[in-house]
Amino acid sequence: MKRILSSLAICLAVAGSLQAQELANFSFGRGMKPIVSPEIKNDSVTFRLKADYATVVKLSGSWMENPWTGTIDMKRGENNVWSVQIPLPSPEIYTYNFVVDGVNVNDPQNILVQRDGTRFLPMLLVPGERTENYGEAKLQHGTVSHPWYHSEILGMDRRLTVYTPYGYENNPKKKYPVLYLLHGAGGDEEAWSSMGRAAQILDNLIEKGLAEPMIVVMPNGNANQAAARTLNIPEKQMNWDRNALQNMSEAERSKLMNGYVRSLCEEIVPFIEKNFRAIAKPSSRAIAGLSMGGGHTISASILYPEMFDYICPLSAAGSATPEQIATLKKAGVKLYFLACGNTDFLFQGAEDMHKKLTEQGLEHEYFVSDGGHVWSNWRLYLNTFAQKLFK
Amino acid sequence: MKRILSSLAICLAVAGSLQAQELANFSFGRGMKPIVSPEIKNDSVTFRLKADYATVVKLSGSWMENPWTGTIDMKRGENNVWSVQIPLPSPEIYTYNFVVDGVNVNDPQNILVQRDGTRFLPMLLVPGERTENYGEAKLQHGTVSHPWYHSEILGMDRRLTVYTPYGYENNPKKKYPVLYLLHGAGGDEEAWSSMGRAAQILDNLIEKGLAEPMIVVMPNGNANQAAARTLNIPEKQMNWDRNALQNMSEAERSKLMNGYVRSLCEEIVPFIEKNFRAIAKPSSRAIAGLSMGGGHTISASILYPEMFDYICPLSAAGSATPEQIATLKKAGVKLYFLACGNTDFLFQGAEDMHKKLTEQGLEHEYFVSDGGHVWSNWRLYLNTFAQKLFK
Repeated sequence: MKRILSSLAICLAVAGSLQAQELANFSFGRGMKPIVSPEIKNDSVTFRLKADYATVVKLSGSWMENPWTGTIDMKRGENNVWSVQIPLPSPEIYTYNFVVDGVNVNDPQNILVQRDGTRFLPMLLVPGERTENYGEAKLQHGTVSHPWYHSEILGMDRRLTVYTPYGYENNPKKKYPVLYLLHGAGGDEEAWSSMGRAAQILDNLIEKGLAEPMIVVMPNGNANQAAARTLNIPEKQMNWDRNALQNMSEAERSKLMNGYVRSLCEEIVPFIEKNFRAIAKPSSRAIAGLSMGGGHTISASILYPEMFDYICPLSAAGSATPEQIATLKKAGVKLYFLACGNTDFLFQGAEDMHKKLTEQGLEHEYFVSDGGHVWSNWRLYLNTFAQKLFK
Repeated sequence: MKRILSSLAICLAVAGSLQAQELANFSFGRGMKPIVSPEIKNDSVTFRLKADYATVVKLSGSWMENPWTGTIDMKRGENNVWSVQIPLPSPEIYTYNFVVDGVNVNDPQNILVQRDGTRFLPMLLVPGERTENYGEAKLQHGTVSHPWYHSEILGMDRRLTVYTPYGYENNPKKKYPVLYLLHGAGGDEEAWSSMGRAAQILDNLIEKGLAEPMIVVMPNGNANQAAARTLNIPEKQMNWDRNALQNMSEAERSKLMNGYVRSLCEEIVPFIEKNFRAIAKPSSRAIAGLSMGGGHTISASILYPEMFDYICPLSAAGSATPEQIATLKKAGVKLYFLACGNTDFLFQGAEDMHKKLTEQGLEHEYFVSDGGHVWSNWRLYLNTFAQKLFK
């Protein structure tokens, strides 16, 4: 037994002293005061970066008026640690980066990172009422998995992100309702779980008893992709030639352009209901999506009006005709949650849709928030409508 | 139907024109020649970075003789694109970064990223025989999931990474053998799936018929952590006070110091065998681990000699007594795969262990590779011993 103890002691000692690749995240440069960044104190936040030879260091963040080009100058201090203190932005999740002599740099002190498309960005979570469900839940975590389903329609195996709620493993006879949660253009099957904090939001809401335990399915909405581009799987060449499209029959064209929505409803839904303990009926199926995914949500509700009783287009790029809305109403809808930011470039589309739904007498909730076409709104919408599902 | 088509057309058009957060990974700055980095051509690879205002730009990579401090100068070219062309390193997975005026910078053109501890690093995969199983498999992908198990022993819910092989979902009656795959100091439950390419290696080996379809379980080996530090869950204060340890009885001390190994064998193994379709017998259980995880592997084989028929300590920080080896031999071992690099600082420990196993007549495979205590060896070992399991 002593030999085991001493072996483990070696392991622990090794961790402190070596320059092996495995140990890359141990801090080197002992003796130096550790640099903390970002540091929230009262009503301010300070960012710091050690940059010995830089000429100009700036900070750029998604809370700024122009998050793409706006920057704040940082000042060189002791030991060439550059810093800037700013008033704490309002409670929300932000991403930011430093700009060192014109080049974007991630914050090496910040272990919180969000993946946006193919970029990994340092994250700032400002605590407050709005963000209380965005951090890790206290005790109860669901399982996030990445199964692959086969799509005959799109001609490839495709990767999904699936959240099963806390308790799924320990209640082997319990069945759950399912939310299909769709991303926008530029996103992939990890958009909602990274930028959208979907697992954290559901964990918190379920732990607090504010949402029903549910499965959440987050597919890849790009019909040419098997999986996120970060997996580096060759993409399929899609035939989006405008002339070819115009020469097709309407049926052919619809089949081609709605390939993903068809795969969702005819392949993903059955895959989930076979491989997970899902309740396979419309009153236990919800569909929600942002931007392009809001368009997919509307298309799915039109092409498969009987499939989902809960329909939530968010900042949606999409619309429907009065006839299509009438058909949907007839099929039965338990919740139609239409959400958009009041400065979103798609706001007029949401207003029009609200008007049409009202005219057709389809009872719905029209949720208008401040702001534009951004993740802060989509997290807010998920945190809001998830509490209304399956009740 | 036409309305649906035009909605989808809007989505696609939107993708090309907007500055929304969701679209961050679309390329801006149209008209500029796209920068490609890294670019492999024949026997060389070129790295490029646009840095308008930098004074000195260097390249640092894990293939260099001293990957921590070695750098190569890059040269400013047209449009302030800095570049350097180097001879292609031998086939392997490398990480690298730029150093802009003294600050580490990731390659914004490279969508392949590995997470090492809390750092996200650009990855260079040099193709060749050695790396042919490290990229995505052609067609058949397993499922990677992150379930949480409850540990009474360590007093918290803890996160696992679990790989189930291609076909798991479509063969609901098939049961599988299980490999428990442990990381080293500084790692976490995502070390093997990111730096170790475990899912890719298993996918490729299984697709080619070179390995048995198996479940791979990758726990978090840090007894104080519920999950990877990147999840930002407060860590538990562990009582590693040396004086306190010395004053304990041997039983108490063993219980404390082997808490993780006990949780592995008494909690994780039962959790997996209950929640996955695992074959629950020693001949269908393998355990392997690198560095500290090699120590855990040896400890588990000593404390639970009947549990695993396949035992693979890799660059292990650990040892066993002749009596412990004799007990293990008596319990029955189908494969003992002992691996180490010939320049590893732990190489002498592997030599000693090899000698002891030989002296006790425990049949084993002693696999010595070139190089040190690095992931290139651990990927090679996994790619090698996974082909020998459960046959």
